[in-house]
Amino acid sequence: MNRSDTIPLSLDQATTLVERILTHNGFSPAHVQALTHTIVAGERDGCASHGLYRTLGCVATLRNGKVMGDAEPVVHDHAPGIVRVDARGGFSLLAFERGLPLLIEKTRANGLAALAINHCVHFSALWPEVERITDAGLVALICNPSHAWVTPAGGRTPLLGTNPLAFGWPRMDAPPFVFDFATSAVARGEIELRRRAGQSIPEGWGVDAAGAPTTDPAAVADGGAMLTFGGHKGSALSAMIELIAGPLIGDLTSAESLAHDAGAGAAPYHGELILALDPARFLGADRAAHLARAEAFFAAYEATGARLPSQRRYQARARSHSEGVQIPQALYQDLLALLD
Amino acid sequence: MNRSDTIPLSLDQATTLVERILTHNGFSPAHVQALTHTIVAGERDGCASHGLYRTLGCVATLRNGKVMGDAEPVVHDHAPGIVRVDARGGFSLLAFERGLPLLIEKTRANGLAALAINHCVHFSALWPEVERITDAGLVALICNPSHAWVTPAGGRTPLLGTNPLAFGWPRMDAPPFVFDFATSAVARGEIELRRRAGQSIPEGWGVDAAGAPTTDPAAVADGGAMLTFGGHKGSALSAMIELIAGPLIGDLTSAESLAHDAGAGAAPYHGELILALDPARFLGADRAAHLARAEAFFAAYEATGARLPSQRRYQARARSHSEGVQIPQALYQDLLALLD
Repeated sequence: MNRSDTIPLSLDQATTLVERILTHNGFSPAHVQALTHTIVAGERDGCASHGLYRTLGCVATLRNGKVMGDAEPVVHDHAPGIVRVDARGGFSLLAFERGLPLLIEKTRANGLAALAINHCVHFSALWPEVERITDAGLVALICNPSHAWVTPAGGRTPLLGTNPLAFGWPRMDAPPFVFDFATSAVARGEIELRRRAGQSIPEGWGVDAAGAPTTDPAAVADGGAMLTFGGHKGSALSAMIELIAGPLIGDLTSAESLAHDAGAGAAPYHGELILALDPARFLGADRAAHLARAEAFFAAYEATGARLPSQRRYQARARSHSEGVQIPQALYQDLLALLD
Repeated sequence: MNRSDTIPLSLDQATTLVERILTHNGFSPAHVQALTHTIVAGERDGCASHGLYRTLGCVATLRNGKVMGDAEPVVHDHAPGIVRVDARGGFSLLAFERGLPLLIEKTRANGLAALAINHCVHFSALWPEVERITDAGLVALICNPSHAWVTPAGGRTPLLGTNPLAFGWPRMDAPPFVFDFATSAVARGEIELRRRAGQSIPEGWGVDAAGAPTTDPAAVADGGAMLTFGGHKGSALSAMIELIAGPLIGDLTSAESLAHDAGAGAAPYHGELILALDPARFLGADRAAHLARAEAFFAAYEATGARLPSQRRYQARARSHSEGVQIPQALYQDLLALLD
């Protein structure tokens, strides 16, 4: 992008801008704080699709009455290993914040624990939550359903969501090992982008209404379905996410979430499952030695010639801390318009 | 296979045969019971590669001094949510048996719990263990490293194991939803089979010593590496397994297990992580309604045209219960020879 088409913002400026917009539009101070943290983290880490752009969606969702802007999550100490948080129709992020301290406490006491978030509206990447858990020295595994746009390998009609799976491992002297991927072959937006541009899509991204492989993005969007990554293995994994972040926590599957949406096109409304495990509790006095072995594994991973996940994010983060971020002029104008 | 080349065995006959061989060769009664259960289950479910054939490997491993045939596993009540079992150099299966009751008890009490098996020799598929957990009405997630034969996406040297991931969900009036897959693109034996047959392999199975994609199985085996399924997503998942079933439980990564083997070609020696979650504890009084929603999901899954995982196994199981199994004459002779 030509720099003259962009607006430079320091991270503090970006934070203030997002806070002002969300506050002006009626989010409670607690939601403003939780949303801003995640939105600015996305922009800071170079994930523009999960960055300041998302502020527009948050406000639109609120204006359309599809999210509660002042919902106060209720934390339940549900079982020795389970925290439940009822988000009460608010965005998931504040529910996560409110449940996190008890999740950490239970994980340290038991060795592992679960945080189940119910009745939340969800739009965010999972890695910012993963990092909150690795910041506490814990291992994290997070997943959620979304909307039924994806068919399992061998299928022809949508059933599964894009169902992200994210994992984090706290490292000794480096940012955490974190991955966060959709179990769909690609993000839904990728197919839409190709359709708008009149381009074809690679095989493996979707099927047409008859379940046949197609390279026509319109055939996928109109009556066809997206595919999972990794064939039947990726499909199995996506089904697992439907189950453990759906019925297991008493919340909606992707098909149920899409039905609940009833064509409104709002952010998915469902649950989220967060598991945390405590290396200190698993390993006791031997912890340092075994975590050093994990560090040797990371060094060996890079020595194969492969790249550890999240490295591009961490590079963008370092750059943003020193140089701030650049956002498109058009986005900046759209954001300012939300202050009217 | 021509029926004249095979020997028919009832499941009872198969069980007695395996028991006699393992006993005759020096396994303790407890190991004989645990090994036989899993070996006969593999044959019964039509997984010949994990069936009676594996008896040969178990005996060879014992004769080569690479497994303790009478190791008595030691169960540690390690934390409120963690059972640890030291397999003391025996096969993993008896360690699993010995840890299972306490895992179930902890899972029901806390909502979720972990069983960490250490210092075990491992050769078995994970689904028989998954089914033991779903039989108790619990959800299961199991994984382990293996030997470093696989390079992550973008890499050229082996680091990761074939690292299986298995999951199970207890169903209401049907066999459980179970998957059990290697995170490598294919099983190692598939590449070896193609090499012996002078056939090429599809792209995506492996790379040569320079890290370049190859269709030559010899190039993968000699200085190259296998690949994971699903590109960088499958590689991330495989790395997760190395971490949580390796350093997290104080046991070896695939690279460390291979180094420990020191060229002997024995079954991998490492740990195994089993997680269990209790739908009853998560859901309380609403359990039946939410498990019924899971059943609706399974029906919808099949309605897409896709096949639920494990259905072929369950069909073979039903057939084996009524008709018994057929094993190759040559295998039968090899098995009988172990009774001399």
